[in-house]
Amino acid sequence: MARVRKQPGTREALLQYAPVVVLEPQLYKGKWQDNFGNGNPVQMEIGMGKGRFISTMARQNPDINFIGVEVIEEVLLDAVKRMNRAGGIPENLRLVWINASLLDELFAPGEIDRIFLNFSDPWPKTRHAKRRLTHASFLEQYAAALKPGGQVHFKTDNQGLFEFSLNEFSGCGWKLQNIQLDMYKKLPAGNVATEYETKFHAADMPIYRLEAIKPN
Amino acid sequence: MARVRKQPGTREALLQYAPVVVLEPQLYKGKWQDNFGNGNPVQMEIGMGKGRFISTMARQNPDINFIGVEVIEEVLLDAVKRMNRAGGIPENLRLVWINASLLDELFAPGEIDRIFLNFSDPWPKTRHAKRRLTHASFLEQYAAALKPGGQVHFKTDNQGLFEFSLNEFSGCGWKLQNIQLDMYKKLPAGNVATEYETKFHAADMPIYRLEAIKPN
Repeated sequence: MARVRKQPGTREALLQYAPVVVLEPQLYKGKWQDNFGNGNPVQMEIGMGKGRFISTMARQNPDINFIGVEVIEEVLLDAVKRMNRAGGIPENLRLVWINASLLDELFAPGEIDRIFLNFSDPWPKTRHAKRRLTHASFLEQYAAALKPGGQVHFKTDNQGLFEFSLNEFSGCGWKLQNIQLDMYKKLPAGNVATEYETKFHAADMPIYRLEAIKPN
Repeated sequence: MARVRKQPGTREALLQYAPVVVLEPQLYKGKWQDNFGNGNPVQMEIGMGKGRFISTMARQNPDINFIGVEVIEEVLLDAVKRMNRAGGIPENLRLVWINASLLDELFAPGEIDRIFLNFSDPWPKTRHAKRRLTHASFLEQYAAALKPGGQVHFKTDNQGLFEFSLNEFSGCGWKLQNIQLDMYKKLPAGNVATEYETKFHAADMPIYRLEAIKPN
């Protein structure tokens, strides 16, 4: 992702989009279904970028609640504006500003049904391995937030990140399934392409994908 | 692997190489260390082809016993002749003719320390999936023959077979480690290249590798 310049006034602009944009998500720990006003399962994308994936998922699956998480406020604001231009933000979607490292402050144990990671930053340097969203320290947080049997669905174009992720998930006792080393050879039913995915696939680059089931 | 024409007299020729070549391996079930005359761990390659991997491993690791398994008698005979020409067959190596599907008749439970699968036939057609040496039905046999904590080490140039294998191992509860999607980017210490591997790597094709630990 291109580095985003800090824009003055971003937070104020985001505040106008409350309650769809949630700037203090800690307030809803253990109460997300109340926030959505129903008992449907809650699924989450970490690092939603421009938001096409999570907003499409929300529109296609009205019986699931979705949370799009983004660390960079400017990216979050851009996503909100895009969704508004493209017909509004679905009722079953919340957009949450948070640093991914604070996940355990956002969700009660087992509160999340599924986590999506799409084209996360590969952080290719070894000394940055801890920042990768599939590092063991993050997997521990995901396992805590997910319900029993809950899954992480992960897509990337980055071979190094995918290799790292296979090892991290398996090393932490997650069971892997539907691993694909070239996803477009046999596209999973209901696949929703992200902006990056469309671009990379158009350039004929392989997309890697896996599903990981949290340890018992 | 190129199809090998059935050669008359192959079995008779192999008999000349007893006891290094073992044509009735069922006789040694539970007694392989006796056969080797020591208490060292026994490691095995299934589908040894021309035999460079297993004979090199045997020479480099005199404190481990090695068994090279080959289904096709003509391939086995060719491997034996090659080894003889290249300085003889190491004392800690046995070459065994057997159909891989009969593994449980060859080894007592836990008798094997490690299994190597190198560039196994990919059997790309879906209807042939059961013939792939990483199909769940084979993994079950490997798990039975391996000691607790025993590992399968698997290398291939075939993306489809590697993807299939990742899913089979993980689906059967094996723990994966040291997964590599391009092994020559960071070659494992002590890697012994097979004939195929040398050829594929020279052609700049990626080699995939994984280690799988049998389920508890």
